[in-house]
Amino acid sequence: MQDVSADLQFLSGVRVVDFTQFEAGPSCTEALAWLGAEVVKIENPKTGDPGRRLRPGKPDDDPYYFQVFNANKKSITVDLKSPRGLALVKDLLRKADVCVENMAPGTIERLGLGYDAVRELNPGIIYCQVKGFGTGSPYEKNLAFDMIAQATGGTISVTGEKGRMPVKPGLSLGDTGTGMTMAVTILGALYRRKATGEGHRLQVAMQDAMLHYMRTNFSTQARTGRAVERDGTRSGGGSNAPSGLYPCAPGGANDYVWIMTSRANPEHWSRLCKVMGREELINDPRFTTPDERVKNNAALDEIIIEWTRTRTKHEAMQQVGGASIPAGAVFDTMELMNDKNFDERGIMQVMEHSSYKPYKMPAWPVRVDGKPPRVKASPILGQHTDDVLTSWLGLSEAEVKSLHGDGIV
Amino acid sequence: MQDVSADLQFLSGVRVVDFTQFEAGPSCTEALAWLGAEVVKIENPKTGDPGRRLRPGKPDDDPYYFQVFNANKKSITVDLKSPRGLALVKDLLRKADVCVENMAPGTIERLGLGYDAVRELNPGIIYCQVKGFGTGSPYEKNLAFDMIAQATGGTISVTGEKGRMPVKPGLSLGDTGTGMTMAVTILGALYRRKATGEGHRLQVAMQDAMLHYMRTNFSTQARTGRAVERDGTRSGGGSNAPSGLYPCAPGGANDYVWIMTSRANPEHWSRLCKVMGREELINDPRFTTPDERVKNNAALDEIIIEWTRTRTKHEAMQQVGGASIPAGAVFDTMELMNDKNFDERGIMQVMEHSSYKPYKMPAWPVRVDGKPPRVKASPILGQHTDDVLTSWLGLSEAEVKSLHGDGIV
Repeated sequence: MQDVSADLQFLSGVRVVDFTQFEAGPSCTEALAWLGAEVVKIENPKTGDPGRRLRPGKPDDDPYYFQVFNANKKSITVDLKSPRGLALVKDLLRKADVCVENMAPGTIERLGLGYDAVRELNPGIIYCQVKGFGTGSPYEKNLAFDMIAQATGGTISVTGEKGRMPVKPGLSLGDTGTGMTMAVTILGALYRRKATGEGHRLQVAMQDAMLHYMRTNFSTQARTGRAVERDGTRSGGGSNAPSGLYPCAPGGANDYVWIMTSRANPEHWSRLCKVMGREELINDPRFTTPDERVKNNAALDEIIIEWTRTRTKHEAMQQVGGASIPAGAVFDTMELMNDKNFDERGIMQVMEHSSYKPYKMPAWPVRVDGKPPRVKASPILGQHTDDVLTSWLGLSEAEVKSLHGDGIV
Repeated sequence: MQDVSADLQFLSGVRVVDFTQFEAGPSCTEALAWLGAEVVKIENPKTGDPGRRLRPGKPDDDPYYFQVFNANKKSITVDLKSPRGLALVKDLLRKADVCVENMAPGTIERLGLGYDAVRELNPGIIYCQVKGFGTGSPYEKNLAFDMIAQATGGTISVTGEKGRMPVKPGLSLGDTGTGMTMAVTILGALYRRKATGEGHRLQVAMQDAMLHYMRTNFSTQARTGRAVERDGTRSGGGSNAPSGLYPCAPGGANDYVWIMTSRANPEHWSRLCKVMGREELINDPRFTTPDERVKNNAALDEIIIEWTRTRTKHEAMQQVGGASIPAGAVFDTMELMNDKNFDERGIMQVMEHSSYKPYKMPAWPVRVDGKPPRVKASPILGQHTDDVLTSWLGLSEAEVKSLHGDGIV
């Protein structure tokens, strides 16, 4: 197969000291790693990032989760609770451009690596913190995981069926969605720093970041004056009809196609009538205007379902989408993983690894000059300790050996 | 009230020619605008960005949606179908650092502003395209909106209740989620360009970007070997118990609290027993290990519900979260909008505007040196035409007047 990915050097030479764990922090530094930064995970020598395994105290049993959020990074082990280990990390921070942490509230400060301490070591550093709740929030000391951010940030309230209890959006937006807003800001700070040398303190809360992804919901609320209610497939959508998920053959759990006709383009509706071989509907008085179609939505949906039920979701998507009407089949994770087209375009790539079996995973989704960046192995715990201590700090082989011998690294 | 926001100059001097519309593109350029770039929307003189209104051909009836994705930007009107208008935009592109478009497939090329044409004008430009499907995808010519990206990118398949049809995550991840991945990449390219002067072509597809937010789901699939199934509040989550949404008083549509006890921290469970005044449960053989708790989840949930039902979600969140157990009430859009703490921290800001009523909206969620960037008014259609034509291109007042007179701008 032709090489569909390429090394990306946008952040070549940028050094990131990465104290993050699980997903909200690692998804941020992972974005920097895809762009070519040297991201060095600082991990404790015993267990490392708890994201390395599902069950505490057990051997690495689920490396995929770790790999997908830590590809292209380095790992060094340092005992931060030993004075020599702490001094080593301070030396690394003196040489770093960026540091990022998402520990529980107060932890990094207790380690002696709070903002004021690190700024003193390196006034030009971009010092970044990801927490569940913002400084100044009544919940600022509270712990958070993805679902807590999604509950308190509103995304859960707008997801689910009408009249039933809410459900969680199945994806981990509370984590990766937050990480993306921090990555954007770090890159802005780095750009500015090229000219000024200025360091900055950046802070994001997972709850706050959810509001950024809820802006369309807030605009709906501004129009209606009411809290946005969940409404199944219509949740958060406008009032277009027809628009929604329509069942397809053979009727499996994800055999649905989304067909959407927009008010902003009245031709979507007439095109759909043609695709279904029902051109007489174009002039049917029940359906001539967007408002009439919304009013007669139930009758309209029946007509469309009659058509979709006799086709697979793939056929329906090809026929409707091919006629310039927005359409999309509901693909599940296995269908996406097995879709060869993602491999051919480098959107899914296989990570080869010295210790784990090769795993296929989503790469950074943006193509640069036609190719997404190339996936490289996630690090084994402490794999780059010697490399980083010698290349960043100029330690000798003997010094590194002594640190190993004393259990500091 | 004390000033809780500050002007942010990270991208001061960066010029962005913005051809985007609706949300996937504007959310990307909006991130650049928050960071201080000069983002100039190129709009057609008659109607501008279709995101300016809900109903085509009607007066602006829903400016909030437009404002929230176009704050801090400028707007100029240019008739791209007139040769003089096209020449003007080409002159702007010669002076730009970045251009971004998310028109329907093939449209920008038909306008004569495809990548090859623009690169010829300005080899150092970062040329960015957001589409529904990737170049090389069988669907590359298809149209897409948020929900089509979410259907074909997997997020819908994992959202909803067990055994029922899927629902759409109520937030517009297909749009803003995609925009964030492009913003990150643009900023990486800008950083590199400071050193090299190199231009680049960046492309992202909304379907592909969804995979980036589905990485935890793919890791679940890697573990189980099966497509990830939706399961209400447990969708996409690990197998922790207790974990989920628990009903609170007085029983309204969003009166729920998420309580989460993590396998990675066994103390969450014992702390929860203490909060509920049920310390005897800590040593109850049904619940002593994470595996036992998963096995006896139903009995466990009953015990917790008995406790949560007699409290409001606020009380439950305060008590459980305050005891260092991850907890979050489900807040709806109105509760979030009316929470004064977001105002006090600058996470929600009021946009003052010369033409619209003041609207409160989420600002960029990341704080820089303690403050989020300040919201500035979204532009009226063509508000900055004269400003940009004179400041970027050095046109005289008379030249600008003639362009207005001839209907070019």
